[in-house]
Amino acid sequence: MSKVGTIGVVGLGLIGGSMAIDLKRRGFAGTVLGVEADSVNAAAAEKIGLADSVVPLDECIERSEIIIVAIPVGGAVKLIPQILDKFQALGQKAKDKIVIDVCSTKENLARSVHYHPMRARYVATHPMAGTEYSGPWAAMPGLYDGHACIICDSQESDPKAVRTIEQLYDALNMRTIYMNSSNHDVHTAYISHISHVTSFALALTVLDKEKDEKHIFDLASGGFSSTVRLAKSSPDMWTPILTQNRDNILRVMDTYIEKMNAFRDAVADSDEDRMRELITEANKIKRIIR
Amino acid sequence: MSKVGTIGVVGLGLIGGSMAIDLKRRGFAGTVLGVEADSVNAAAAEKIGLADSVVPLDECIERSEIIIVAIPVGGAVKLIPQILDKFQALGQKAKDKIVIDVCSTKENLARSVHYHPMRARYVATHPMAGTEYSGPWAAMPGLYDGHACIICDSQESDPKAVRTIEQLYDALNMRTIYMNSSNHDVHTAYISHISHVTSFALALTVLDKEKDEKHIFDLASGGFSSTVRLAKSSPDMWTPILTQNRDNILRVMDTYIEKMNAFRDAVADSDEDRMRELITEANKIKRIIR
Repeated sequence: MSKVGTIGVVGLGLIGGSMAIDLKRRGFAGTVLGVEADSVNAAAAEKIGLADSVVPLDECIERSEIIIVAIPVGGAVKLIPQILDKFQALGQKAKDKIVIDVCSTKENLARSVHYHPMRARYVATHPMAGTEYSGPWAAMPGLYDGHACIICDSQESDPKAVRTIEQLYDALNMRTIYMNSSNHDVHTAYISHISHVTSFALALTVLDKEKDEKHIFDLASGGFSSTVRLAKSSPDMWTPILTQNRDNILRVMDTYIEKMNAFRDAVADSDEDRMRELITEANKIKRIIR
Repeated sequence: MSKVGTIGVVGLGLIGGSMAIDLKRRGFAGTVLGVEADSVNAAAAEKIGLADSVVPLDECIERSEIIIVAIPVGGAVKLIPQILDKFQALGQKAKDKIVIDVCSTKENLARSVHYHPMRARYVATHPMAGTEYSGPWAAMPGLYDGHACIICDSQESDPKAVRTIEQLYDALNMRTIYMNSSNHDVHTAYISHISHVTSFALALTVLDKEKDEKHIFDLASGGFSSTVRLAKSSPDMWTPILTQNRDNILRVMDTYIEKMNAFRDAVADSDEDRMRELITEANKIKRIIR
């Protein structure tokens, strides 16, 4: 028997769809209801079998014990309080329902529900896994295995609700880590958001050149591909992330532009000592990544 | 029987060592002589078996039919003309010897030998494969399989020498592409050098933060790692590349800094339309990488 009868997944893309597959397949959920605003995506998600059925949002909220909001953070900031409103309206019937988000910025979300009377029914989570692809076609089993999931501001949530969500992430083979929203957003600016921005800028740079020289990238190497890979990431997901995490990401970008200019000046001056110094310092990244 | 009796490899690191392994193992070379200035590397290379023996440079030049110069480009620019001098001094005995380099910048090398009387015995090549590791320990079989090798200014080399070197790269399972030095250096600035610089700058940015927050990168994701991976590349190799390809790389860096600033301004202004536009444009990188 499954741990939870019915879960609802709002947004059947890469993130929500991949959760749906494994939560159902691994017996955490008996039934998975999906909500999907885009009709093409909805049809695909049903066909692929990401959800047992795609239903309207209200029906999903009424029937699900856990609701996973897996839409871009710009929408989630509005939707989470609305779902809590709905819990409140449902009264006793909703007293054990839980809503979680899976967004990669958290401070604004936290602010949007801070004084909500149903705040304790919301658990803020960030399962740290993904690919540069999106949509229901990108969903896959095993996406989350072995990665970390950050749970934010857990003291604001009902302890029993937190335990249930820990079990949910346990079913996805994730380890859980605890942090407040504000630290979370600084962290993600450094370990995820800035890499996306540097990839976007690199893509823009080389695409400019490609306009004149059609075949210049026929020879692009593995190193190039891995550096620019994240530039395939979707604007629907990343525009709201950059907006929501504006102050942190600006600070990181400013440091980055400073480092880039230091490099540029060393190259312009043909200052080999300085270049060597900068590269040797950069090599210390080995303490962070294998 | 091997195609060539003896080849010499000057520099038994990742690039030279990996060539040595496959040229010997696949029967292209009967004997591989190595030259290695660093005594620790020399001992390791002999122990690992990258070369049949490690010998002084002069002996290597005298005994080898093909000499592969696989040292950083700053040294190669000096060494290639010296080896051609030696060919000249050896007279008839050297009339069929060939020297090649494997560097990732070519214009200065081309200039350094342009008027050399033995110019035709030099073939400029750039096998486009590698990893972010270096030294004899990083050498591996199969490194070059399936990648492209650029041969530069082939009309300046003896046609028979070019054919022999084409066979050498054929034994490494590489496809050969022809280009002049100057186009080559523009190409590599875009498809390889700029990715290294953006990775170095990213590494410097995050390492600055790590000084204050020791554990911030415990959660670093796959996307972060792949974007910053090239920052592990060695200063011995990359300082001379950036120096030698100064003008091209500066042009690319300036475009890059411009794009980064465009992004920064969009984030600072919370201009979602502009961010969406930039990311959508960056997504076109899909036409270049899979």
